[in-house]
Amino acid sequence: MKELKEQLIDSKPVYAGKIVKVRQDRVRLPDGREATRDVVEHPGAVAVVPVLPDGRIVLVRQYRHPVGKILLEIPAGKLDPGEAPEACARRELEEETGFQAGKLTKLAAFYSGPGFTDELLYLYRAEQLAAAEQKLDTDEFIEVEYFAPERLKAMIRSQEIDDAKTLVGLLLAGCPHE
Amino acid sequence: MKELKEQLIDSKPVYAGKIVKVRQDRVRLPDGREATRDVVEHPGAVAVVPVLPDGRIVLVRQYRHPVGKILLEIPAGKLDPGEAPEACARRELEEETGFQAGKLTKLAAFYSGPGFTDELLYLYRAEQLAAAEQKLDTDEFIEVEYFAPERLKAMIRSQEIDDAKTLVGLLLAGCPHE
Repeated sequence: MKELKEQLIDSKPVYAGKIVKVRQDRVRLPDGREATRDVVEHPGAVAVVPVLPDGRIVLVRQYRHPVGKILLEIPAGKLDPGEAPEACARRELEEETGFQAGKLTKLAAFYSGPGFTDELLYLYRAEQLAAAEQKLDTDEFIEVEYFAPERLKAMIRSQEIDDAKTLVGLLLAGCPHE
Repeated sequence: MKELKEQLIDSKPVYAGKIVKVRQDRVRLPDGREATRDVVEHPGAVAVVPVLPDGRIVLVRQYRHPVGKILLEIPAGKLDPGEAPEACARRELEEETGFQAGKLTKLAAFYSGPGFTDELLYLYRAEQLAAAEQKLDTDEFIEVEYFAPERLKAMIRSQEIDDAKTLVGLLLAGCPHE
């Protein structure tokens, strides 16, 4: 196998926001030359595919300022410092949808955009849902909706579902494309 | 439907890198209060699932500095200014793998991380591949590999495939999970 790895030369923080930080790294390429790499540091996140006893899936509709649109997504949220992904999945599911999960199954862990960010997303399926109380963050405005898998299949095909983690979640949890 | 949309109050650039830029926006929430939102501006990208006549899929192995790991991904790359996504898909496929696509089919367009970035990814399936010449960027070090769909299915299950666009691409192009 060819040498592919890059070696870090130095690193400088260039921005610290509320959620993301950005650093500019200088690296040594496999051929010995140098390059710069911007890295958007993200605390990591979880996403949950909540499946009701009748098979319907619980999604959340919310305005996403970075893309300027209202998107339909699986419930998700950032890890708090030191928080275990499974605990975060239970917390975000309850906060955003008002459901408590009796059973949580890990489906995957994946990088959202490894070309520029270190964000790692842990994906779960939640079952045996019990209705509790929605507890949104003060800056969250979310609508909860329920969809049969057949309907979601059509919405994936028509590109009404256009969020990466939601596509991965629905496809892995068993909403096949065709 | 509840009001979900946020209104932009003002916007300030806070970082301009080679690929990403970051701006800090102030928004008016649906309830009238204010919040700040960091936005990582990205030029947009394409990703391609290249399918050989025998059904095998062409993947690229490369070191991803932001996550500090060598990942196995579908070929992908950023849009040049003004470049049409389909042209970019053909260009990136040829540059990274050395294959020219006789047939290109749009599979989807999706946001990679709409909570913090505007990156939109256009996803294609490429068929009728003709071998040409790999033309990597000067800072790209990539290995090309070929996988049968059955093998990829197992690699999705074992989480050897851990890149969001690659999961979406393989699952939509017909590597079902189970």
